[in-house]
Amino acid sequence: MSESSGLPLVEVGEVVSAARRSAGLIRRTPVLHLDVPTSARDGAAERAEGLLLKAEHLQLLGSFKIRGAYNAIALLPEDVRGRGVVTFSSGNHGKAVAYAAALHGVKATVVMPETAPGVKIDGVRALGATVELVTPERRDTYPYELAERTGSRVVHPFDARDVIAGQGTLGLEILRQVPDVSAVLVPVSGGGLISGVAVAVKALRPDVAVIGVEPELAADAAQSLRDGERAVWPTEHVYRTRADGLRATSLGALPWEHVRRLVDGIVTVPEDDISRALRCLARHGKQLVEPSGAVAPAAFLYGHHVPPPGAGPVVSVVSGGNADPALTAAVLTGQQF
Amino acid sequence: MSESSGLPLVEVGEVVSAARRSAGLIRRTPVLHLDVPTSARDGAAERAEGLLLKAEHLQLLGSFKIRGAYNAIALLPEDVRGRGVVTFSSGNHGKAVAYAAALHGVKATVVMPETAPGVKIDGVRALGATVELVTPERRDTYPYELAERTGSRVVHPFDARDVIAGQGTLGLEILRQVPDVSAVLVPVSGGGLISGVAVAVKALRPDVAVIGVEPELAADAAQSLRDGERAVWPTEHVYRTRADGLRATSLGALPWEHVRRLVDGIVTVPEDDISRALRCLARHGKQLVEPSGAVAPAAFLYGHHVPPPGAGPVVSVVSGGNADPALTAAVLTGQQF
Repeated sequence: MSESSGLPLVEVGEVVSAARRSAGLIRRTPVLHLDVPTSARDGAAERAEGLLLKAEHLQLLGSFKIRGAYNAIALLPEDVRGRGVVTFSSGNHGKAVAYAAALHGVKATVVMPETAPGVKIDGVRALGATVELVTPERRDTYPYELAERTGSRVVHPFDARDVIAGQGTLGLEILRQVPDVSAVLVPVSGGGLISGVAVAVKALRPDVAVIGVEPELAADAAQSLRDGERAVWPTEHVYRTRADGLRATSLGALPWEHVRRLVDGIVTVPEDDISRALRCLARHGKQLVEPSGAVAPAAFLYGHHVPPPGAGPVVSVVSGGNADPALTAAVLTGQQF
Repeated sequence: MSESSGLPLVEVGEVVSAARRSAGLIRRTPVLHLDVPTSARDGAAERAEGLLLKAEHLQLLGSFKIRGAYNAIALLPEDVRGRGVVTFSSGNHGKAVAYAAALHGVKATVVMPETAPGVKIDGVRALGATVELVTPERRDTYPYELAERTGSRVVHPFDARDVIAGQGTLGLEILRQVPDVSAVLVPVSGGGLISGVAVAVKALRPDVAVIGVEPELAADAAQSLRDGERAVWPTEHVYRTRADGLRATSLGALPWEHVRRLVDGIVTVPEDDISRALRCLARHGKQLVEPSGAVAPAAFLYGHHVPPPGAGPVVSVVSGGNADPALTAAVLTGQQF
């Protein structure tokens, strides 16, 4: 996909429609304050003045993914509904598609690598979806073969217009909940979330900065923005980050159009600061989040993003909370993980 | 204090005034949903349909105590302000008084037993208060001697009209945030919180049940209500509960008047269910709370309170979140503590 592809961006009207469509079903998650007592600050770099958390770890199913999945399935034409949807994700998107499909009475198939942990397979099945296990190499292609064969529709986790529009509802909520917001920090992987948020924010409040945050070990979006063309990082490279929700190997083609045209910048955070942010959110914010959910707060807490002086509060999106309890316990006791 | 003392109850107008007085300073904490996936329920007894959490662990300083302390100090006459306040509490109330006094430019002295942990002493000092250490036996009497000598005012943690009115602002918020609430579950120790909540709820929505929750090991309020007279339990008895915020040996005299005249019932929960609720709140609610904060949710989750069928949602007050991180880690890993 070339940089001048000119794929048309999602429009704010689509985001507003998505919000109306899902009202009463998708949760309007709270914006939480993060207080860090001065006496408890973890080294000179940590700061907490004015940091607000948009708490998507408290969303239905524990992550923002239901916003996009719900919208995509609600918009399916009647004939496709009868034939079902298929997706590939062993994480939060798979659960979101399973749940949203069940709400609409649509059959869902979630394709997972046969190496996926049993607990994740059971979790998706418990939501009513069919799980098909394939070899890891076929995970990305098999869903399209299946859709071709059965007439079902693939719900891509990020490279899809209706999914991006649904994720954008989070941006609308932030503008309503924090009218004096000066910047929004959004974690970036495939780029669906930041695309939707940027559409909403830049249409309604172009003065508010939209800044992406990536782990240093999965910083393909930062590189893309720097080089002016979409970078793809090798799988074995991005899999080194502990932020397992942010391991997509690259931005999607449609998200890349949004990022390069709407987003103000992408910053990166080292792994140690992701761990420190997890600990800070638990100790001082009382919130247990997944590593990916701590990436955007980490950028603020440890100085990787400096908002203009005198501006309004910065909102960091906490994208999800589906952490392994053992990992959480390790974080709280200060162990390395 | 006899049961027919007829101490006049706090009026709802005092609660409304307290809310107006503290607007913009005290946080309107969110009401959070607690989702427990059916597949993850911890034994047959656990249920989660319709449970909402009023999240006072996300209040300023991590507990509801600032509501009452702020109101009491804001209402001090000018001459008393110049002479300062004194209180006795090594826990959340001590911090709340220190903080509220500093906001009003009032000198605060917090009397603590010399056996108090250094970290608690430092915490109160960091908020600007003077700490005076006394032998444990003198902890309850020394503050009154000091007040007598210096003309300062004792801010009692629960047996005081302005403190109760301040705590009642939490009840006003619940009615606004959850208009179809059918019952409110409130943890009980000295009784200040449930008194204020009951004043607000029973004045505005007498159809909403106000139910107190105590650990079985500190069930003096339940016994008081059953016997029709205020019971006092021995210190060494109530100190057996792990819910360290609920170890007052008895209801205060003024709270007792409120409890016997306004409260619908007091239920009790065993220690194991407090631990299970802490774990459930962490795993499924992503919330880290102190043991006292898990007592009211435990009553709902494990069947110690059964709301009438078909009624609206039950709101459990999570009173605070200042837990020891080591305890929290033990909870998450399923260890006994």
